Amino acid sequence: MDKNGRHLFAYAMGINTHQEPVVYMREDCPVCRAEGFNATSRILIRATNNKELIATLNIVDSNKLPSGNIGLSRIAQRRLDVGEGDMLVISQAPIVLSLGAVRKKIHGHALDSSEIDQIIVDINDHKYSDIEIASFLSVCAGDRLNLDEIISLTRAMVACGEHIEWPSKERIFDKHCIGGLPGNRTTPLVVAIASAAGLTVPKTSSRSITSPSGTADTMDTLMNVNLTIDQIRQVVAKTDACLAWGGAVNLSPADDLMIRIERALDLDVEGQLIASVLSKKIAAGSTHAIIDIPVGETAKVRNQADADRLAWLFTEVGKACDLYVRCLITDGSRPIGAGIGPAEEARDLLAVLKGQADAPADLTERALFLAAHLLDMAYHFGYEAGLHQARSILESGQAWAKFQSIAAAQGGLKPLPSPHYRQTIHSARSGIIHSIDNRRLARLAKLAGAPFDPAAGLRLSVNIGCQVSKGDPLFELFSESPGELAYALSYYQANMDLFHIE
Amino acid sequence: MDKNGRHLFAYAMGINTHQEPVVYMREDCPVCRAEGFNATSRILIRATNNKELIATLNIVDSNKLPSGNIGLSRIAQRRLDVGEGDMLVISQAPIVLSLGAVRKKIHGHALDSSEIDQIIVDINDHKYSDIEIASFLSVCAGDRLNLDEIISLTRAMVACGEHIEWPSKERIFDKHCIGGLPGNRTTPLVVAIASAAGLTVPKTSSRSITSPSGTADTMDTLMNVNLTIDQIRQVVAKTDACLAWGGAVNLSPADDLMIRIERALDLDVEGQLIASVLSKKIAAGSTHAIIDIPVGETAKVRNQADADRLAWLFTEVGKACDLYVRCLITDGSRPIGAGIGPAEEARDLLAVLKGQADAPADLTERALFLAAHLLDMAYHFGYEAGLHQARSILESGQAWAKFQSIAAAQGGLKPLPSPHYRQTIHSARSGIIHSIDNRRLARLAKLAGAPFDPAAGLRLSVNIGCQVSKGDPLFELFSESPGELAYALSYYQANMDLFHIE
Repeated sequence: MDKNGRHLFAYAMGINTHQEPVVYMREDCPVCRAEGFNATSRILIRATNNKELIATLNIVDSNKLPSGNIGLSRIAQRRLDVGEGDMLVISQAPIVLSLGAVRKKIHGHALDSSEIDQIIVDINDHKYSDIEIASFLSVCAGDRLNLDEIISLTRAMVACGEHIEWPSKERIFDKHCIGGLPGNRTTPLVVAIASAAGLTVPKTSSRSITSPSGTADTMDTLMNVNLTIDQIRQVVAKTDACLAWGGAVNLSPADDLMIRIERALDLDVEGQLIASVLSKKIAAGSTHAIIDIPVGETAKVRNQADADRLAWLFTEVGKACDLYVRCLITDGSRPIGAGIGPAEEARDLLAVLKGQADAPADLTERALFLAAHLLDMAYHFGYEAGLHQARSILESGQAWAKFQSIAAAQGGLKPLPSPHYRQTIHSARSGIIHSIDNRRLARLAKLAGAPFDPAAGLRLSVNIGCQVSKGDPLFELFSESPGELAYALSYYQANMDLFHIE
Repeated sequence: MDKNGRHLFAYAMGINTHQEPVVYMREDCPVCRAEGFNATSRILIRATNNKELIATLNIVDSNKLPSGNIGLSRIAQRRLDVGEGDMLVISQAPIVLSLGAVRKKIHGHALDSSEIDQIIVDINDHKYSDIEIASFLSVCAGDRLNLDEIISLTRAMVACGEHIEWPSKERIFDKHCIGGLPGNRTTPLVVAIASAAGLTVPKTSSRSITSPSGTADTMDTLMNVNLTIDQIRQVVAKTDACLAWGGAVNLSPADDLMIRIERALDLDVEGQLIASVLSKKIAAGSTHAIIDIPVGETAKVRNQADADRLAWLFTEVGKACDLYVRCLITDGSRPIGAGIGPAEEARDLLAVLKGQADAPADLTERALFLAAHLLDMAYHFGYEAGLHQARSILESGQAWAKFQSIAAAQGGLKPLPSPHYRQTIHSARSGIIHSIDNRRLARLAKLAGAPFDPAAGLRLSVNIGCQVSKGDPLFELFSESPGELAYALSYYQANMDLFHIE
């Protein structure tokens, strides 16, 4: 027996298995039999370039793969960095010891920092299968991680990613909204205003997890957000700000692996949320951050008590990691702005920045409120003075000028995409709009194709408090395929009460 | 747009994706683009025979699949019951509403019976992806299901499977051990003794979930256990008993789907355990059952309080479902018998039944204890009288005769397989064996290939209390492949303290 494993040649299966590497072996393969592999095995593959990975094995009919070969899914091939015909060494996967800690958590016991460290290191090394990540996230969901666990998780996530340092800057500012309100795209406005006021705001944003758009999805329709760390430095050197996608700079790579499973499960995990947000801020070198926590019956956070707990956790975890955090609990009872989905939200941003008459006033006011707090955090001159300064920067066109400079430094402003399919939906009754279900509205935009199709989503013609007559437009739906448009429409037909009209 | 979906032709990929159906579409496939499918989609496939299924989509390079075709994994093809070239209709998967209830549970809220019903119906209809099943099981783990939830889960699992009725019998007896003790294979002995005493014991057993062998794995090495319901009736008509694999008769098909994920996660879920055990007994028509709960530091149940809770739950759930349950809390501090793994456990069984001098006394006594309780449950003559009768049935050879009749009715006794690779492990020190870690011992046998390779496992030369000298044999390891033997040995090298010798 060869103690170091057995040899097979790489064969590109050309199958996209997302981030979970899958390998394929013939059922009559002697390596398969000799090593005792069966259809549920996890196996270790090493390339001659010394790269290695643990993958899930699928067995294939012997006529589907040449003898002596092992098939690789795309991600398996990319991680091993091999071409067809390269020699690979196959052996049993080592036992992943940190899965013992996951089982401990499953059984309701708190984890210490070394256990959490090891889980995150192993996830980051791609040693967990998808169902193992799903299991870990599910038992950390809700409020099942305590403060110490969240601090450990945050530090572990920072430790395994890249860092951005700012040797010439004393203070780095950041702003984040935990999400849950469709359309609430204030971040680019706050960044433009605050940097125009002299703060350094090198903003890296996420793509959507469970919403119809994340800030990075929206910004991606306006400018290049795939910046390297060096490019971020160059943009910030020119403009004191940037609007980049955090995923491109690998600030919290373990988080990126977990977010995919969270998205597939349509799950939000409190401790993971905090660690995800703060790890990226810490890795990006931030010293001061405001966090917007919208509260409403159908927002991500449903009541004041949950918001208070979240604010406390953000503040305490920040403190433990040398990040000064101010949480702002805001009204989350209604969508903010009119556009929902990447491009439609970008349209609203431009309208606000340009001072257009049709700019959504609620989006403008929410952005000014947050910018005012960020300015107060920097200059300690009080909220009112901050609000006055923020408004004058926006109304004078300084924010729009700053936004254009950032866009220019990031390769120039792009034209917004238009959707291929659209349909206006009219009210079936007359009355006043008493409430709008944010969750179902978000789901509607997602079913139409957001955020994967940037032009997909919807645009509200109404908001809470509006008087509508039967036949008045409620919203327009946008989609890139007829299948998705039909899918979204059938969901709306079954959920017309998401607009509560009386 | 075709409202009913779009057409593609079936293409057999020949890939074994276990129980999760996976389908493969070309990245340039017009159906893919028109329907807005992306690499993370779940899609609905209907065949012209009216069978349908929800599957996970993998995108493949366009040269890997003929144009106009959709690739099917083996399980997808089997479920749809189609051949290559058959026409399939593809559309977006409907939203699985019961996943909302899973999220409710993830967030710590109890579920009502209709929510649990719907989850089980949907899992049984294969509407859940593997990560969704993993998520559900993980948040039900430990003691996170309350009594009402476990009753609902049990009923839901009974409702979706087959039932066995016994119109001519008033009382049907059953026996179950919750497991956790390597080697503790008492069930076939209890069945032989109790049926020889006149009880009807139509035993259906499970295969291993996380252990090196389940009763069905062990029995499979001795006789045909893949019986249909009609065959079970015939065997019971002849012998008043049977020793069948429950999975073959589909008594709790949803459970079978969940057990695969539990096994992959090496997870035991209390409520799922109770529902899994009792649903199969209820579906098999049992009226009386004893449940053996071994308790020990390294057994499945670690302390008396947990055992008491489990016994209470088994009894109460049984009561709610018209099954009279008696729980017996037994010593789980040490392995029972000497063989661990399907064939090695079968060797011990035969030794006990034949009254061989080398039969493990602890296995004999444990089986007599349980049989005595079952006889007392039937005849109400007290434990002592039950023990006397059980011992006389075993010692007189009546139990062995009965076991042979059962085997004959199930197609005859098979010769036991012998392992291809074996190695004796010797003690590195002298002293008395103070404890043996059941969990790590079980893992050792699994790493050697049990239960997938029936001949794999190990045979203990010692047990707790034995005096050993350096160089004395501790156990012999059996394997079907050199890779697994090496793997198990390397685990033992790192875990030699699983035998605590002082």
